Parts: sequence; structure tokens; C-alpha cells
Amino acid sequence: MLAIGLLGAGRIGNVHAKAISTHPQSKLVAVSDVNAEAAAKLAGLYGAESRSNEAIIDDPSIGAVLIATSTNTHSDLIEAATRAGKAVLCEKPVDLSLARAQACLKAADATGRPVMIGFNRRFDPNFSALRKRVAEGAIGALEILSITSRDPVPPPISYIERSGGLFRDMMIHDFDLARFILGEEPMAVSAMGSALVDKAIGDVGDIDTAVVIMETASGKVAQISNSRRAAYGYDQRVEAHGVNGMLQAANVRETTVEWAGDHGFTSDKALNFFLERYEAAYRNELDAFIGAVKAGNKPHPDGEDGLKALMLADAAYRSWKTKQRIAVG
Amino acid sequence: MLAIGLLGAGRIGNVHAKAISTHPQSKLVAVSDVNAEAAAKLAGLYGAESRSNEAIIDDPSIGAVLIATSTNTHSDLIEAATRAGKAVLCEKPVDLSLARAQACLKAADATGRPVMIGFNRRFDPNFSALRKRVAEGAIGALEILSITSRDPVPPPISYIERSGGLFRDMMIHDFDLARFILGEEPMAVSAMGSALVDKAIGDVGDIDTAVVIMETASGKVAQISNSRRAAYGYDQRVEAHGVNGMLQAANVRETTVEWAGDHGFTSDKALNFFLERYEAAYRNELDAFIGAVKAGNKPHPDGEDGLKALMLADAAYRSWKTKQRIAVG
Amino acid sequence: MLAIGLLGAGRIGNVHAKAISTHPQSKLVAVSDVNAEAAAKLAGLYGAESRSNEAIIDDPSIGAVLIATSTNTHSDLIEAATRAGKAVLCEKPVDLSLARAQACLKAADATGRPVMIGFNRRFDPNFSALRKRVAEGAIGALEILSITSRDPVPPPISYIERSGGLFRDMMIHDFDLARFILGEEPMAVSAMGSALVDKAIGDVGDIDTAVVIMETASGKVAQISNSRRAAYGYDQRVEAHGVNGMLQAANVRETTVEWAGDHGFTSDKALNFFLERYEAAYRNELDAFIGAVKAGNKPHPDGEDGLKALMLADAAYRSWKTKQRIAVG
Amino acid sequence: MLAIGLLGAGRIGNVHAKAISTHPQSKLVAVSDVNAEAAAKLAGLYGAESRSNEAIIDDPSIGAVLIATSTNTHSDLIEAATRAGKAVLCEKPVDLSLARAQACLKAADATGRPVMIGFNRRFDPNFSALRKRVAEGAIGALEILSITSRDPVPPPISYIERSGGLFRDMMIHDFDLARFILGEEPMAVSAMGSALVDKAIGDVGDIDTAVVIMETASGKVAQISNSRRAAYGYDQRVEAHGVNGMLQAANVRETTVEWAGDHGFTSDKALNFFLERYEAAYRNELDAFIGAVKAGNKPHPDGEDGLKALMLADAAYRSWKTKQRIAVG
Repeated sequence: MLAIGLLGAGRIGNVHAKAISTHPQSKLVAVSDVNAEAAAKLAGLYGAESRSNEAIIDDPSIGAVLIATSTNTHSDLIEAATRAGKAVLCEKPVDLSLARAQACLKAADATGRPVMIGFNRRFDPNFSALRKRVAEGAIGALEILSITSRDPVPPPISYIERSGGLFRDMMIHDFDLARFILGEEPMAVSAMGSALVDKAIGDVGDIDTAVVIMETASGKVAQISNSRRAAYGYDQRVEAHGVNGMLQAANVRETTVEWAGDHGFTSDKALNFFLERYEAAYRNELDAFIGAVKAGNKPHPDGEDGLKALMLADAAYRSWKTKQRIAVG
Repeated sequence: MLAIGLLGAGRIGNVHAKAISTHPQSKLVAVSDVNAEAAAKLAGLYGAESRSNEAIIDDPSIGAVLIATSTNTHSDLIEAATRAGKAVLCEKPVDLSLARAQACLKAADATGRPVMIGFNRRFDPNFSALRKRVAEGAIGALEILSITSRDPVPPPISYIERSGGLFRDMMIHDFDLARFILGEEPMAVSAMGSALVDKAIGDVGDIDTAVVIMETASGKVAQISNSRRAAYGYDQRVEAHGVNGMLQAANVRETTVEWAGDHGFTSDKALNFFLERYEAAYRNELDAFIGAVKAGNKPHPDGEDGLKALMLADAAYRSWKTKQRIAVG
Repeated sequence: MLAIGLLGAGRIGNVHAKAISTHPQSKLVAVSDVNAEAAAKLAGLYGAESRSNEAIIDDPSIGAVLIATSTNTHSDLIEAATRAGKAVLCEKPVDLSLARAQACLKAADATGRPVMIGFNRRFDPNFSALRKRVAEGAIGALEILSITSRDPVPPPISYIERSGGLFRDMMIHDFDLARFILGEEPMAVSAMGSALVDKAIGDVGDIDTAVVIMETASGKVAQISNSRRAAYGYDQRVEAHGVNGMLQAANVRETTVEWAGDHGFTSDKALNFFLERYEAAYRNELDAFIGAVKAGNKPHPDGEDGLKALMLADAAYRSWKTKQRIAVG
Repeated sequence: MLAIGLLGAGRIGNVHAKAISTHPQSKLVAVSDVNAEAAAKLAGLYGAESRSNEAIIDDPSIGAVLIATSTNTHSDLIEAATRAGKAVLCEKPVDLSLARAQACLKAADATGRPVMIGFNRRFDPNFSALRKRVAEGAIGALEILSITSRDPVPPPISYIERSGGLFRDMMIHDFDLARFILGEEPMAVSAMGSALVDKAIGDVGDIDTAVVIMETASGKVAQISNSRRAAYGYDQRVEAHGVNGMLQAANVRETTVEWAGDHGFTSDKALNFFLERYEAAYRNELDAFIGAVKAGNKPHPDGEDGLKALMLADAAYRSWKTKQRIAVG
């Protein structure tokens, strides 16, 4: 039984608390949050204690911490937790600053403790099945990868302002997924984008609509499209095209019901957002983390994966800003 | 917190034990089984005790029992449990004998304790959404209802022999679902069927392939098709046709991945069997039971629903045997 | 080049006129109709002459006639045309009276001239592909066949009155398709039905909503569902279930466009009616007829097929009327 | 009746000959080809004459010519035909050289005779329905446009060598379609691509796999993906994402049959290539041309559209070559 402390009792913290509590090999021992009330409430739900970050990190009976706090605290907490001998599962990104992220992961590495980054989509049953089949050769060598990712509604401007921008906050998931499926590092990135969903997003210097293309050394190409809004639900699709065919992972609908009438044939919207769509992914992610920690294996995706996705996000940001194609790595 | 005793630690008992243990308002107190080892193992998994049926039924701290034992014990256990003041959730059918089922439910009724019958499909998110939309008038008055139900593989002959036959064991679910969606009682049943999947099924007097049509007093018609085998997974579909359109609940696939190649476009098989396909249904069913018990409401489907589905199954059996259309009710 | 005379310039006559005129091996020579103006107009469209039935049948330069007149004239015209040495392609049914149909086909047979019956659905690219794959063993031995057939809107009552009733006018297509795909003769029929779409249809003694089940000597079962109304277009589907799997022929949509929004995902209605849906089927049917006539082969479906479908329709009618299962053949 | 002369009796010439001959308002008068035998054969099929280009262009009884010759002859023939007073429908592209194309269209313009460019995809029922619904506001203002276009197999290297390269030969269709649906001009293009399908294509300086992104002045973004190979048929899809939703035009399958078995659910490949997939598009294109010529209207897409698509193709080519984002217009 892995004793886990959860740092952060926000929306995603709630998802993790449930996953930890229902996993047969882990136990939620304590929860912290800047909002003590939120921590107490979440802890109470699962028979855990409400504590400070420090009290969790310093507790020798806790084997692992799951970091689900705000992004600007991630690197400090990773350093502190690994220094204290904990295995760490940290929500993406490590840090908005690449330099700080690199320093943090170097420090963590030195402790020998494992750090896994929460790129949950790798663990979605649909995307992981697609990736497995690509890796097994179902379509021969991969040639074109297309990722579509659209949120149902944009976050508040206050979130946008602290987010690091669309490329680092949202598309970073797609960069990681692209690397995961391509099995090769992109060498160049070109990005275009604008603020079409909400002018206020543009006013704070960010965009809400973007397309990116990338290519690898062997000539594989990838395209990513992002929007902060999708009227039909959380749009999460992947398409891989290879020598012998194509694999597509489609959206997950609320039900399988289709309604036919004078209007045509109507099926349900896509599951509304990440809490529903990626519920299984979060469970699988935790399971992979626990499995690796218990076996003494390096968990994946690791800090290196976190850095590489961040480097692609930075390159996309610079490409958008400078209107140049940006070489990576 | 509703304290629940689980009678039966077989495959379906395992599903219920998990649902009871993870429901926020119920607690699995004890488990029984003719196989004491199975009961102990299942009880151990969820921190419950292993006991005899009697010890569970006689425990005043237990508020409800869930009966998941073999069919021939259902009516005795319903009577004993309600007599002891328990609320009861019993797997279908109440009894293979209509007379015995009627007597049992009369006795249970006299105790004033609620009895809910486990027609899990009513609680499947897809079928319940379809039914809700029919009831809300999405397609106007219903005219034709079609239910397709095909198991991936037939059960062992030993099971078939004790099952009461395809109509009472398998199609009974479809009869209940038909009543649930039609909102009217079928007045007549015609059945045809044969043993095509396995000759041995025919040898013990049963069939494995059947079609049934029914009609209600207002002229609505329904058709049901059953097979004990489906190479492509557990085939569970409903189609409702009305004045203004049609509602269809399709199968649930393992993933949303589609693989395209020289062979065409291939998507996953249907979820393999009831444990996977109806996992949410079992949870929702338990939730409805707990909700009704806590609120002091009559749970649905109840004993009456159990009897009516059994009457349709009996009528279908007689129709098949006598090659006659059989009037019901 | 096969010189063809077309008897009947109604809606279906127009479809055939176009098919004959654009087929590379046939020529539309003359058109007749009780409405001389309609005949003249249709003939004019394709550079053909407008004539009487007799003038067409007696013209030795005409090798074949296509009979698309009202049902009550079919058997007389088949007899006259074959007696005059013509090959005949006649719209279904041969006659509403089984006895008259039998007599007509016996007379036609005696002339040695080929008679093909226009069961167009056999030639639909989707249904014929499904049937071909069943015959090739794609799903092993067939076990359950399901046919759904729903018209977008009911015909006028004046048509209903002369139609012979739903079983002989509408479901006869499904009986033929069932025989075509089953590869075996149904031995028994049970039918249920009512007038739900339009009370006036019930007032003239007919029904507009019906379900039928049938079984063959080897135990295969079939189900057919018919409605005279479908808000979502012309609903024409076939599903065949066998030892190793299932084949389904779905509806044809107006376009492949899907529209997603807050309402969900909406695709187009089914093609509205037989003229659009079966345009290719009519062309393929004519092509098969021309091919058989030119090669001196017996065309299929033939008069025997016409009779057998009619016998099933008669049995279904009697089953509905008498509330009995009816043995056939 | 518009008398049309067809220049070019190759594969696409055959498609046009059939469309011209079966259109109720046009007549195929004469066919030319560098291969006189091919011209004679095609002309014979439709009762037309086989002639030289000059004899067609100089015939005053011919009102329009359809140019389906090899690309390098297009601009000369457009000039000659318009000078001779003909309306012209010319296959894309006008010329591989932008300067030559501009000169040609200027000369043609001076004659006052209409020139339509054969961007057939605008007339595909699926794409034109999608575009109409975008224009009507079904999804509000457009934000992201995605076009996928993959040929089933690459053309021979001899064709590749003369083709002008993937961007001018293949993606030019997608550039035109993008302009057509966007309703705005792209201002910048970034391209990536490689020769993954066939090394020989790379050896002659071309690529067979490419992705492009573009943006308009108002910030709309578009992505295009091309491959010269698709194992599952001719892959032709469009997706438009806007304020209120999404419109997708899916591929057209050979039939609607789906085959389910132990392997999953398999539906047919996409229609194999442009002759089948765009059969209706070619007919609709001709219909639009004839309609415009008869009404004295300017047909669309016109020479300007041809130039603009070529400018985008040129920009994409330069972007790929120079690894720079290229501004357009």
C-alpha cells in the first residue's frame, strides 16, 4: 500500500484524491491546499488528514506526493519532495520557465527519487490503444500525425494571465502526445494563431485558436489544432497515417443514443471536459505511477518528457511571435 | 449509510460487492455463499465478514440484503429477508415458477418491506437515456420497439439445464426492457426459435436463437431478437420508432479507435459481456435502490415488474412450444 | 441494342425511361399510358414514340416490354406481351390474386419468353453486396435475418384502397429480399400490425405499422418491420446474423456532412424515397434484364419469385387477420 | 443546346465526354487528342467527330470548349479558344508558371469570353453542402479549416516529373477549396513535407507527404494535409470549426455495408479515386458552366481563382524549399 500525500485540493486534486482512494494499492493519507477549507473538505471525504505542504513532505510514513497545486509552485515542491525522499507525480508543466524546470529536474535527479509528469492523455484508453497499435506496426511506418484538441469553453482571463499562454498551458498536452506517438523528436515547429474566441484573451497577449506543424529528422510530419472553445463538447482526437493505413481515435460521446427525425440523425455531444473524458486516464496514470514506484522502475512520462514538451511549446510560442519557423533541440 | 448484506459471491456477487463498497451511502457488512471460501475471499476484499444467509438475514444492524444466489433460492430468501425486516434487491428472476413467484411476492408485500428486482438494463445510461427521451416525447407516440440482445458465447450446458430456458433466463431482460420503454402491457406474444448455436442446447430442450413479436392494446408493436452467440461481442441494442422519429441506443465499443487500411475501416468489438457493458448500470441500479430505501419510497422495478416479465417469458415459451400466438394478461 | 417498349408513364415509368435511354445496350422505342399526355411527354423526353399498349406489344421490332402500369393490369399485359414474343420486365406484384398470378405465369411460361419481376432491392448496391457476402460465407451459416423498411410518408388513401394492403403492396419487397438472402423458403409466418400512422388507413381495412417473424425448415429465423412513415427519410436496412458475425446494410444519407454544435452531432436524413435511394438499383435491375435477354438466360427474380413473395404476403395477411401463425408452402 | 468541343481524350476527358453527352442542355460535337486513336474512340462512343484542336476551335458552330489536355498546353489553348469566341472550361491549373498564367488570363479577359477553371471539388455534393452551411452561418464565423487529401496511390514518376510538384499539382485543389470555404484570402503560408511514400519522388526533387498551415487577415487559420498514398482509398475530408460548432464532410464509402465479427466492425474503403468519388462533382461543374454560359454570367471558379490557388501553391513550394513562412498577396 503506497501512502500518498496530495498537494492541492482544487478541481484536479479532487480527481486525484478519488483515484488514490479507490486504487487497491494506494492510500490517501493527507491533503494540503492554500485554501485550508478546501483541503479539509477533500481530506474529510476520504478519511485523510488536512495538513500543510511541509507537514506532508516531512512525514516519513508518506512514500509519494502528488503535486496538483498551481503551476508556479511545481518546481519548488518537486525539489522539496524528492529531497525528502518522496516519489513524485506532478501535474504538467514542471515550470513555465524552461531554465527553472531544467534546474529543478536536475536537483530531483540527484536525489535518485522518481518524478513522473502528469501528461494524462498518454493514459486515455483510446489514445494509448492507438499508440500501441502504431508501435506494433498496424499501419507500418508513421508518416502524418494529426492532433485536434479543443476545450468546450475558455478558462477565465485570470487563469489565462497566469497560464503561460496557449502553447505552454494547453497545447503542451498535444506536444507530449505527439512525441509519444511519433516515437521521434520534432526538429522544427511553425505556428499560427489568433484570439478569435475572446478578444480579452488577445488583450492579455495570448491567443485561443492555433495551428502548428512540426517535422522530425526522418521526415514525419505532424499537425496540431487547438481552440479554447467547442460548442459540441471537449474535442479530443488523434489521427495517425502510415504506410499501410490510418488509425483514428474519435471523441467519446455522452451516450450511444442517436435521435432521428425530420432534422436528420443526432447523436450526443462529446463528453464535456477533462474530468469526465479523462477519468479513466487519471486512474491509469496513477496506476502506472504506483506500479513503477513499487517495482523501483523509472515512471513515464518523466521530467525529460516534461522538458521536451515545454521546449516544443516554447518553440511554438516563438514561431507565433516572430513569424518564423523555429528549429528545436 | 445503508448496511447491506450480500447473499451470493459468484460473478455477479462480485460486481455488486464492488458497487456497494464504493457507493458513498452504503457499506458492505457481510457476504454469504454456498462456497464458503468464495464468500470469505470476497468479504475480505472489502473488509466485510463472511457469514451464512441466516446470520446475515437475522442481523438487526443490516438494513438491506442483495440476493445474488442461484435462481432456485430467490423466492425463499426474499420471503425470509423481508420477514426479517430487510429491504431487498434481488437478481432476476424471482422464480422460474410463476405461481411460486406470485406467492413469494404476496408474502413479501405483507411485510411492507420493499423488494426491487435486478433488471439492470433499465439503469444502463444508454437505455435509460433512450427511455427518458421516449417518455419526454422526443419521437412522439411510440409505434415500433425493437430490441436486439445477443450474448458473446453460450453458457455451459449445465447452466442451460437449470436456467428455465432462453425465454425465462435471457429474453426476460428484454421483456422487462420492452415493458419499461413501451409504457404499456403487451397483450399477445408470438415466438419462433431454434437451437442453431449448439446442438447440445437443443438436446436439453432449449433453444439459443429466437425472435418474438408482441402487441399492446393500443396497437404498438415490439420485436425482440436473441442469440446465445455473437462473434463481435455482447450485442445490446434498442430502437424505438414513433410518430416523429426514431431513437437508437447502439453498442458500446471497447475504444473509439478506428483502423483503416486495405481491408476497409475497422472499429472495436462491442464490450465483451455484462460485467463490462453494464458496470455503470449495476452502480446506478444500486444507487436507485439505496435512494428509494432511504426515502421510504417503493423501488422500481419491483416484484410486479418481475412477475410481468416472467409472464411474457412464459407466454413466449408456450408460443414457441405450441406454435400459437399466446394472449397475455 | 435491345428495343424496349415502356408500358406506363407514371413516376416509376419515368425512372425506367431514363434507365433504358442511358443504358448503352437498350433503346426506348415507345411509351404508353392511360394518360396519353403523360405518355407523349415522357416519350418526347427521350426521342421515343407515344403509342397504345397494343401498338407496342404488336410491334415486331420491339424485343422487350417493361410493364410499369397499375397493378390490376399486370397479369393481362404479361400474358399479351409474352404471347407476342416479348421478353418482359414487370413491376411487382404480378397480381393481387395468387390464383390469377399463377395462371398468368403458367401462360407466360408456355410461350417460352422470359418474365422478370421488378424486385428492385435485390439490385441495390448495398443489399446485393450484403447478400453476396452472406452467400460467400463471410458470417458463416445465417441464423437471424432482420429487415427494416419504412416509407417517409404514407401514400394517399385512394392508393391504399387499391394496393392489396400493406403486406402485398409494401412488405412484399421485404419478403422477396428475405427469400433472396435466406437462400431458403420460410415455412411459417406470424404477423402483428395496426393503423397508427393514419386512422383513415385503418378505416379502409388496412394497417400501416407491422412486424412479422418467419422461420425456415432448418431453423433460421427472420423478422421484418414496416411503417408507412419515417420522419427521418426512407428507412431501408438489412441485418444478417450468422455463426461468425453480422452484416448490416445501413441507410444512404443525402450527404456525408455532419454538423456539430450545442445540440450534438447531426448528420443528414436518409435519402427521401425510392426514386433517389434505388436509382442505382433500377439501373442494375435493367442491366441484369438486358444481360439475361441477350444471353438467352432466365432472368432473376422471375415469376416464381413473384409468386413466392406473394404467398408470404398472403400468409402474413391471414396471420394478421386470424391472429394465427400461418404455415406456408 | 450548347455545342461543346472537347480537347483531350484521356482519363479525365472520358469523364467530361460522358457528362457533356448526358447533360440535357449540351451536345458533344467533337473530340481532339494528341493520340488520334484515343480521340476517335471517345468521339465514337458518343456520336461525335474526331478532329484537331484547331478544327474544333475554328468551328463557328461550337460554342464552348472543354480543355482537358496536358497542363503545358492549357494557356495556349485558352488564348486560342477565347480569341475564337468560345466559352472555356479548363482543367486546373492554367499554367505551372504564374507569369504565363497571368498573361493568358489577361488575353482571355480581353476577348470578353468566359473562362472557368475545373476545380471540381467545389461541386462535390458533400463539400458544396458544407460550404453552403458555413456561408449560411450554421457554425457562426469560421475559425479553423482543416482539409485532408490523400490519393490512393502515387502517379508514375514520369507524371510527377512534369506535374509542377505536389503543391501545384495536388494541393492546388485544397488551396482552392480553402479559399472557397474561408471566404477570405490567406496572407501567409508555412509548409513542411518529405518524400516518404516513394524515394524516387524525392529523387526527382518532389515530395509526396506534406502539411501546410495558412492564416487570413482576420486571423482565421487553415491546415492542409496531403499524401500521395492511402491504403484505405481516396481520402477526401473537410472540417470547418466556428464560433458555434463544426461541420465535417466525411469520405464516401463503396457501400453502406458493415461486417462485424471477431475482428471488430469493418466498413468499406473510401471510393477509390477521383473518377468515382467526384463523378457527381464533374456533372455539377459542367452544369454550372453551361448555366453560366447560357445566362451570360461569369462562371466560377474563374481565372482569378486559378491564379490565386497557384499563388498559394507557389508560396507553399517556396516555404518548403526555404524553410520560411511566406507572405502571400
